[in-house]
Amino acid sequence: MQLSKQDLHESTDKIYDTIVIGGGVGGLSAGIYLQRYLLDTLIIDKGKARSFWMQELHNYLGLPPDTQGRTLLKHGKDHYLSLGGDSLNGYVEEITDKEDFFEVKVKIGRQNSIYQVFRAKYVIAASGIIDNLPFLDDMQNVYEYAGYNLHVCLICDGYEMNNKRVGVFGKNQRSLEVAFSLGWFTPYITLFTQDMFEVSSQFRDRLWEHEYKLVEKPIKKFIGENHQMTGVQMTDGSVIELDAGLISMGSQFHSSYLSGLNLQTQGESLVTDKMCRTSHPRVFAIGDLKLGLNQVVIAASDGAVAATGIWRDIRRKRGVKRRSDIESAVLV
Amino acid sequence: MQLSKQDLHESTDKIYDTIVIGGGVGGLSAGIYLQRYLLDTLIIDKGKARSFWMQELHNYLGLPPDTQGRTLLKHGKDHYLSLGGDSLNGYVEEITDKEDFFEVKVKIGRQNSIYQVFRAKYVIAASGIIDNLPFLDDMQNVYEYAGYNLHVCLICDGYEMNNKRVGVFGKNQRSLEVAFSLGWFTPYITLFTQDMFEVSSQFRDRLWEHEYKLVEKPIKKFIGENHQMTGVQMTDGSVIELDAGLISMGSQFHSSYLSGLNLQTQGESLVTDKMCRTSHPRVFAIGDLKLGLNQVVIAASDGAVAATGIWRDIRRKRGVKRRSDIESAVLV
Repeated sequence: MQLSKQDLHESTDKIYDTIVIGGGVGGLSAGIYLQRYLLDTLIIDKGKARSFWMQELHNYLGLPPDTQGRTLLKHGKDHYLSLGGDSLNGYVEEITDKEDFFEVKVKIGRQNSIYQVFRAKYVIAASGIIDNLPFLDDMQNVYEYAGYNLHVCLICDGYEMNNKRVGVFGKNQRSLEVAFSLGWFTPYITLFTQDMFEVSSQFRDRLWEHEYKLVEKPIKKFIGENHQMTGVQMTDGSVIELDAGLISMGSQFHSSYLSGLNLQTQGESLVTDKMCRTSHPRVFAIGDLKLGLNQVVIAASDGAVAATGIWRDIRRKRGVKRRSDIESAVLV
Repeated sequence: MQLSKQDLHESTDKIYDTIVIGGGVGGLSAGIYLQRYLLDTLIIDKGKARSFWMQELHNYLGLPPDTQGRTLLKHGKDHYLSLGGDSLNGYVEEITDKEDFFEVKVKIGRQNSIYQVFRAKYVIAASGIIDNLPFLDDMQNVYEYAGYNLHVCLICDGYEMNNKRVGVFGKNQRSLEVAFSLGWFTPYITLFTQDMFEVSSQFRDRLWEHEYKLVEKPIKKFIGENHQMTGVQMTDGSVIELDAGLISMGSQFHSSYLSGLNLQTQGESLVTDKMCRTSHPRVFAIGDLKLGLNQVVIAASDGAVAATGIWRDIRRKRGVKRRSDIESAVLV
């Protein structure tokens, strides 16, 4: 059930089998599998998963290619709740390992916040990442186009940029390297430094050789209408026309609550085994937090895998159901 | 486009980037990703993937839990074809490695069959497995219930067997071990040897200790109505009432066409790396053919992963698009 701030004592009194941190694609898929394994599950979601911002999921098998990310999330949450799983809107601040279980400290409510501690034997970190966006004075101008034709993922949306005039927005020279992969889809590429960094002369030579343009002035705003970006206006008033954009400015990992557990990472990504288990045997990581491709269908698959790993662990410890368990329960 | 037996010369003349063998969940997901990477793809499908038989996909994120497997396959195929991929109904008999490409020999048409050879740089083996079913005189009787409440997958359908009276149908003692995992969901378990094998006294002791029954007589038929199996009638006329069944008789791997490639296997499963690449650098394996859990969402994810691996390979070899490529194409 959906838990409310006012009535949490049943949930704080017990020890869940698993707390899933993050109610995005990976977390919901894990929750569906966990509940179907008869494991007592709580999903804690801060809201607005990365997929929430996706206007069209072009590549998720079984859904029409114009399905919005938020539609998938809505269906997944309804499915999870229909299986009796618990769900809480909140922000996980810290996890502490108490050997037999974890304590998960949650801030609930943006205003008049309260803090509560929930407990679980296993934790699935499914809180994902969020893309850094160009930082303009008017961020609403960026949100107007991000997720529409101002893309953040080449794998997801390269196809949409086929033979288009595409602007690539980087945060350093290295981040602009994506242009050479984007070059598979289109030769009409303009790179924007946003006046935030310098590029080397070797890099300039490569751009020249590829016939890619480089714009090093600060951006004033994106222009366009109806969520379709048609170009960029620079602070000097000049305009560069574009058909689409690709933001390549890195991302924030929503994983600060894990810091006390000293999990193995590579860069910021969590290292996991083939069952999505981290270097801590009772902490699993799925979706964009872990090493690998950041794709909706992969996160959903990770959820199934991690849930199965946890079920196998718990099943081996707890053993089978006995007739007497059920029959005594009926008598009560 | 859907290719027809009568008009194949365009497809047999060219070399595809990738031929996907199997039009099930994994193959279709791979096809969608490959076409979106602008790679020229042919899916060859013998029809009736394992998921075709699933009456309800209970655990696929984003689809209502009563979605039929065939509905998912239909949506996936429409999606793939909308992206310009080629599809052929046929049975792959053999693959030969010609160094620069593979030759894929296909039998087309069950009657008046013709044989054609298609070529591709990469191959994705996505042809899956099919479950062995109890072999009765009247197989139609088995098909009446298989995929409804006569299940083949504990992970998928354990939840549906919660506290139910379940019959487990094995092909040897080892295959009956699944009863002890099923025991997580229900204590009311009857194991059927179908008079095909003996079990050890230690195994009998374990069953006795768990209060599981063992039936060693041959089965005459399943009984029930409207696809809901309600029990089993033995050849001696006796009837054992059941609420559900779990078939654990192993499966056939649809992979004989790979035999000439000497791929690394573990048991019958193909060994793959994290990009789903087999021990042959240009052969990928996804879904139930490879080691790991057999789940619809995992097969779909595998398709995305393998397609991305192939795209990266080809992109690095072929390089970026040039303006002159497009502009000369327009002039023609």
